[in-house]
Amino acid sequence: MLTSANAAHLPRHKDDDNTPAPRVPRDREHDYTPAMAERRRDFLREQTGASLEHVGRFSFDPSVLPGNVENFTGVAQVPIGVAGPLRVTGEHARGDFYVPLATAEGSLVASYNRGMRVLSECGGVKTTVVEDSMQRAPVFIFDDALEAREFGEWIEQHEDEIRAAAEATTRSGKLTYIGQYQVGPLLYLRVNYTTGDAAGQNMTAKATQAACEWMKANYPGGADYRLTGAIDTDKKHSHINMLLTRGKRVVAEAVIKNEVLQRVLAVDTQSVYDYRQVHMLGAFLAGSASNSAHAANGITAIFIATGQDAANIAESQAAITYSRLLENGDYYWSITLTSLIVGTYGGGTALPTQRECLELLGCYGKGKAHKLAEICAGTVLAGEISLTSAVLAGTWVNSHERFGRNRDADQGVVNGHNLQAVR
Amino acid sequence: MLTSANAAHLPRHKDDDNTPAPRVPRDREHDYTPAMAERRRDFLREQTGASLEHVGRFSFDPSVLPGNVENFTGVAQVPIGVAGPLRVTGEHARGDFYVPLATAEGSLVASYNRGMRVLSECGGVKTTVVEDSMQRAPVFIFDDALEAREFGEWIEQHEDEIRAAAEATTRSGKLTYIGQYQVGPLLYLRVNYTTGDAAGQNMTAKATQAACEWMKANYPGGADYRLTGAIDTDKKHSHINMLLTRGKRVVAEAVIKNEVLQRVLAVDTQSVYDYRQVHMLGAFLAGSASNSAHAANGITAIFIATGQDAANIAESQAAITYSRLLENGDYYWSITLTSLIVGTYGGGTALPTQRECLELLGCYGKGKAHKLAEICAGTVLAGEISLTSAVLAGTWVNSHERFGRNRDADQGVVNGHNLQAVR
Amino acid sequence: MLTSANAAHLPRHKDDDNTPAPRVPRDREHDYTPAMAERRRDFLREQTGASLEHVGRFSFDPSVLPGNVENFTGVAQVPIGVAGPLRVTGEHARGDFYVPLATAEGSLVASYNRGMRVLSECGGVKTTVVEDSMQRAPVFIFDDALEAREFGEWIEQHEDEIRAAAEATTRSGKLTYIGQYQVGPLLYLRVNYTTGDAAGQNMTAKATQAACEWMKANYPGGADYRLTGAIDTDKKHSHINMLLTRGKRVVAEAVIKNEVLQRVLAVDTQSVYDYRQVHMLGAFLAGSASNSAHAANGITAIFIATGQDAANIAESQAAITYSRLLENGDYYWSITLTSLIVGTYGGGTALPTQRECLELLGCYGKGKAHKLAEICAGTVLAGEISLTSAVLAGTWVNSHERFGRNRDADQGVVNGHNLQAVR
Amino acid sequence: MLTSANAAHLPRHKDDDNTPAPRVPRDREHDYTPAMAERRRDFLREQTGASLEHVGRFSFDPSVLPGNVENFTGVAQVPIGVAGPLRVTGEHARGDFYVPLATAEGSLVASYNRGMRVLSECGGVKTTVVEDSMQRAPVFIFDDALEAREFGEWIEQHEDEIRAAAEATTRSGKLTYIGQYQVGPLLYLRVNYTTGDAAGQNMTAKATQAACEWMKANYPGGADYRLTGAIDTDKKHSHINMLLTRGKRVVAEAVIKNEVLQRVLAVDTQSVYDYRQVHMLGAFLAGSASNSAHAANGITAIFIATGQDAANIAESQAAITYSRLLENGDYYWSITLTSLIVGTYGGGTALPTQRECLELLGCYGKGKAHKLAEICAGTVLAGEISLTSAVLAGTWVNSHERFGRNRDADQGVVNGHNLQAVR
Repeated sequence: MLTSANAAHLPRHKDDDNTPAPRVPRDREHDYTPAMAERRRDFLREQTGASLEHVGRFSFDPSVLPGNVENFTGVAQVPIGVAGPLRVTGEHARGDFYVPLATAEGSLVASYNRGMRVLSECGGVKTTVVEDSMQRAPVFIFDDALEAREFGEWIEQHEDEIRAAAEATTRSGKLTYIGQYQVGPLLYLRVNYTTGDAAGQNMTAKATQAACEWMKANYPGGADYRLTGAIDTDKKHSHINMLLTRGKRVVAEAVIKNEVLQRVLAVDTQSVYDYRQVHMLGAFLAGSASNSAHAANGITAIFIATGQDAANIAESQAAITYSRLLENGDYYWSITLTSLIVGTYGGGTALPTQRECLELLGCYGKGKAHKLAEICAGTVLAGEISLTSAVLAGTWVNSHERFGRNRDADQGVVNGHNLQAVR
Repeated sequence: MLTSANAAHLPRHKDDDNTPAPRVPRDREHDYTPAMAERRRDFLREQTGASLEHVGRFSFDPSVLPGNVENFTGVAQVPIGVAGPLRVTGEHARGDFYVPLATAEGSLVASYNRGMRVLSECGGVKTTVVEDSMQRAPVFIFDDALEAREFGEWIEQHEDEIRAAAEATTRSGKLTYIGQYQVGPLLYLRVNYTTGDAAGQNMTAKATQAACEWMKANYPGGADYRLTGAIDTDKKHSHINMLLTRGKRVVAEAVIKNEVLQRVLAVDTQSVYDYRQVHMLGAFLAGSASNSAHAANGITAIFIATGQDAANIAESQAAITYSRLLENGDYYWSITLTSLIVGTYGGGTALPTQRECLELLGCYGKGKAHKLAEICAGTVLAGEISLTSAVLAGTWVNSHERFGRNRDADQGVVNGHNLQAVR
Repeated sequence: MLTSANAAHLPRHKDDDNTPAPRVPRDREHDYTPAMAERRRDFLREQTGASLEHVGRFSFDPSVLPGNVENFTGVAQVPIGVAGPLRVTGEHARGDFYVPLATAEGSLVASYNRGMRVLSECGGVKTTVVEDSMQRAPVFIFDDALEAREFGEWIEQHEDEIRAAAEATTRSGKLTYIGQYQVGPLLYLRVNYTTGDAAGQNMTAKATQAACEWMKANYPGGADYRLTGAIDTDKKHSHINMLLTRGKRVVAEAVIKNEVLQRVLAVDTQSVYDYRQVHMLGAFLAGSASNSAHAANGITAIFIATGQDAANIAESQAAITYSRLLENGDYYWSITLTSLIVGTYGGGTALPTQRECLELLGCYGKGKAHKLAEICAGTVLAGEISLTSAVLAGTWVNSHERFGRNRDADQGVVNGHNLQAVR
Repeated sequence: MLTSANAAHLPRHKDDDNTPAPRVPRDREHDYTPAMAERRRDFLREQTGASLEHVGRFSFDPSVLPGNVENFTGVAQVPIGVAGPLRVTGEHARGDFYVPLATAEGSLVASYNRGMRVLSECGGVKTTVVEDSMQRAPVFIFDDALEAREFGEWIEQHEDEIRAAAEATTRSGKLTYIGQYQVGPLLYLRVNYTTGDAAGQNMTAKATQAACEWMKANYPGGADYRLTGAIDTDKKHSHINMLLTRGKRVVAEAVIKNEVLQRVLAVDTQSVYDYRQVHMLGAFLAGSASNSAHAANGITAIFIATGQDAANIAESQAAITYSRLLENGDYYWSITLTSLIVGTYGGGTALPTQRECLELLGCYGKGKAHKLAEICAGTVLAGEISLTSAVLAGTWVNSHERFGRNRDADQGVVNGHNLQAVR
């Protein structure tokens, strides 16, 4: 089919034309149907010339989609490669895992794969969730600082009632503590929860709104608030997340044998440790959210595959590497994800391909969120080992040449038989 | 089909079992075929019990995938809703756009949609790319600070030759400047490029490696380097990105009429401006990468739909809002994305659904990267207007109740007819 | 006297000379005497040619100095100008204050002075200490993350005993809470105290050492720690200080009448508010420790005058401005110092001139630390008003020309009669 | 004399009393005289009861003070202890130095002293100024982003004329480059200079004002600006300072022999290196301005002694430690001060005691600013070695017990003979 869209795209708007462009068709009663999706594609094709042929090729009934998307038109088909096996010896994740990575970045799967091989050969990656905290952060607005401080004291005295008001709105959310941060006459709160299997942003918003309404109703003289004062910090990296956790704070760690690193990745541990010093300083100098190599890559690929909210990469990327060169030359390597936002219930987790990928990891449904967090962390550590070694071995650019679409190089299709060399 | 995976997941690894788990099947010669994808799904089903039935339902020939993924097994089907029309009056994007948003977060499309309506009713969103800079950041390692400083001076004297070495590796990449940042005996460089239609991370890595090799070969006495000293900062938010740009620095701005805001979103501009003060301080207090409401949401949804690297959300989320309350009560609202990483060539942009979504925006192929950046920025501003207003109007939680999967609430499927109210 | 030092400075060390230079004279028994101070000046004069004549002119007996300095040689005489009266209507500071500012920066006293006049004419500055927290931050080091997490849980269970161990070392220090921040196998603690009248760094170090020793002795299997893991963050600005307070968190606020601002400083409140938006963004963009104009100036000048540890400017500079343009055109202006480190006991507070300056403020001795914190904050707000207005009125550079040593301008001594204009 | 001030302080202001408090006496013609200083002390004594006896004991004629202070009333006498000799093998500072430290923090001089001993025994500290850049940062305000971007392009085309306008105002200031940072319709500039012997804040303000006026007059249609948009960032720590330097960027480095460290400070280099990893992470976690131990301590003490602007500790504290454990067990230790603001001309440098302390270092007058910067850096490294070792050797708290005023401990005056042990 001719997709003449690009050349033919004819914006309807001209500078002197104020006619509104037509709105996207909707059906008030039965909008989540194949027919309505097709009608929208037809409409868009007419407006723009884009065929949307592949977008229209999905394998499920749109009736599953309410609560996940509006104006459903079709799907993005994002390629999934599987890396693994990754041996994990965590608290919740134990065993060998095949990790689905949804990505279009060539060499990413191959790179994680070889890191997983190193980890598995060294006995696996140990994973531990050390904190669990989702939050909504309202701000209360007063006339002066004294009023704000006194309101804060009142909150401390009424924490039980506030908790009760919040928890009345949710079956699985538990209010853990309310952090207070005052600026002038403003009292910023950070209301923290555990949220069961869900990532929990909506649950905590609803619970916190109830808590705020209770406070407003019961504080003598009332209280003026906004449901977010921005320190949550939802869909945003922040230092407060790094310090106080957002989602799961999870550690992956392993002792990498020098022999394995040299044999598989052609790098010795002393070089890695020396490089760590330089890399760490670069992160500090740059004011970076992470002193890791590329934690966001693995996390994103798992997120898209398993129906997590990929916008939470904003927060989830934050990572802190800590390592030790052991006396025997082996290398203790840990990474701490301070703000990993995952859920195994709600969001996109029940969509067809997403659910299947969760099932691939044994992570679908009840009581699996910590397990998924551990697998994410273990995967990230695999990627750290692989990329760091590639930088040191000088193979980094070459592997992108071989596996990636570095079209500038004018080279042909990747030769599959090269893959073995890297794996 | 029975997907017994979750309950039945039987990790092969027991604590005292050191047998390696089986590796994922590959074919050295012909790996990018439907048969090999199926063979891997079969293997995984056998290992884990996961059906991967929907994962296996893709509409294209895997032979297009080399350079995008390894161990291809199937696809994630991510729902796409279309928001718009969004009237854009940019330098590169001009016209009314229907924006494909790949997401599973209920209410997201509806929210952006109503923000777009406000913008369009106010004459559209003006968009401007103000800077374009992709980089790779090697570090050169010396014995003392004086050596490092002298090397830096030598670089300044040989910038033309270094540029020539770098640009010899690429048709479209142009080296713009080399930033120097010294710490002790370490000279961190940030080699900056424009990269044409590509996002450019691989292109700049290759070019910078060539530049470094030239420096190493030509600097009297040689020079020891690592291809990244971490200040690039690839797949990571950083302050240096916010200051010095990574990818496109693009501004979206509009004058929102108080009348329209009140009529469509039930909020007045004075309230928005007052709230801005509080929100801005929250971002500052939290050490946030963004003083926006949720820039990452719109960016992520466009990225997944159009084949951008979603891991770059790590960088692309950084956003700075600046606004003015005008004397007539209207509201000037701008957002600056300081590190938006987009391309219309390379990466996942040529994959079937991804290309179609680029075509929907008239952004596929040559000379379209700035246009795509502008559409992203315009979309982000629509989302800011909508969410900020929802917080102030008190409808934020309710809309998630209606549109989102807030399962805790025990409420049924979203009623489509409520959507109209929000739109 | 001829101070030929500068020209004649003859470094004893030549590149091929490894003879150690002579050590500074000391007397093991009676070192804090005028004679020993003189002997050291003689020694230094002999070594370097510097006369140190004025350095030797101090008005007190060196016997008061043990615990404040070693190798006492003389004094720096730092000029003190007095600004005020400043009307303060705080909780602890109430009345009109004359504030001693030790500085050599021309125009500083004049600038604070005129800000104080504005505040006083507007009814004074309201001041409130909203938090009080000094800390020492040890790090406990384990073999893996699980051990660290379990140790953290044990700490929570033994908080009373830990508190008892800490408080046994001090009369006035009270342990308030122990913050836990885990990275891999490292458990960073931030042990928080109130410290009475003292700034408290030494007190908290001693108490925390005792607490750590108790933990080490009582935790099954023991525990390895370092007394600081750097997150205190002593003598350093940090984001954790801004969030969680170090020293006093104190707010100064006032409603500035538009009429007064226009009359005294030639600026209207709308201009100030508009400028605030731009200034705030600049601070955010720069990654600044403060969105204020120059909080450090006033704080430093008070610190030196009153015997505070001026190195704590590193922390104390952190400031957050929040303001509102009121409907009647007046301007609510607040500043929050998040990490103000002051004491009225210990440190240099009992030294002769320092004590006198504390007495000038009615802040010497018991129960005065919060009062001093409030005066600092009120002074800072005065400086904000003055400098911000100077920038807007275009008089900033001119006032430095008149009052400062802008020698480049080749202009003569400042004419005293100009001062009146600014005041 | 009875200093009853503290008890008797009678604020003149009562809540219902709006009588203004009396103003500080001034003489329009002859204000910088001993008599006027005395008259002010008399006035203050009358108002507050504070004697100000020691404050009134200064050794110089107040006629030297115009341009340094207004309302001169007396002096703060800050004790100076001398540490050293410190062997420095820098570019500008070469030889053995005795460093004057003005402080009231017990043990500070002793601690730096022993660090200097270690450095001197290891052959001295190497120091290098690697960058020199002072700035003023105006912001230009436009109606939209396109206008701001075009203005930025115009600036690039007219850099020579802008430089000429700026440099016409100063003999020693040289404009090096103009950094541009755009946010929406705002163009933040950072105009960078070298400033000869002066710290240069006033010089650069004046020059930048002239540059801005030239731009405003010559840009077609004019241009609206504020002289600071806050990204300078004057008297404030910021990330932009750390990246792009403010003042001098200066490195101190040395190879510490393991034998010397063990003998003098009872710590081995491996322990120091291991601790560095933990300390570095703490700084990263805390969002600290410095990964050093306490750079601000030494800098502050030198600043007060030598007439630097101590408020610049806000910026000057920023420090980055980088170290290597060498194969022979020795330890390469470097510290980089990224924003050290020093001058040997202007400010307080010509005041009597301050000048003498500069002379003690051979740093008074022309062409000495880099020398002073190097001595500061060398001193800071000495303090790092000493404090880090004290933390590891467990002697940190004890040394404060012995040397500091840890009054809580109820212990008597420090015994001088203990000092030898530490030195």
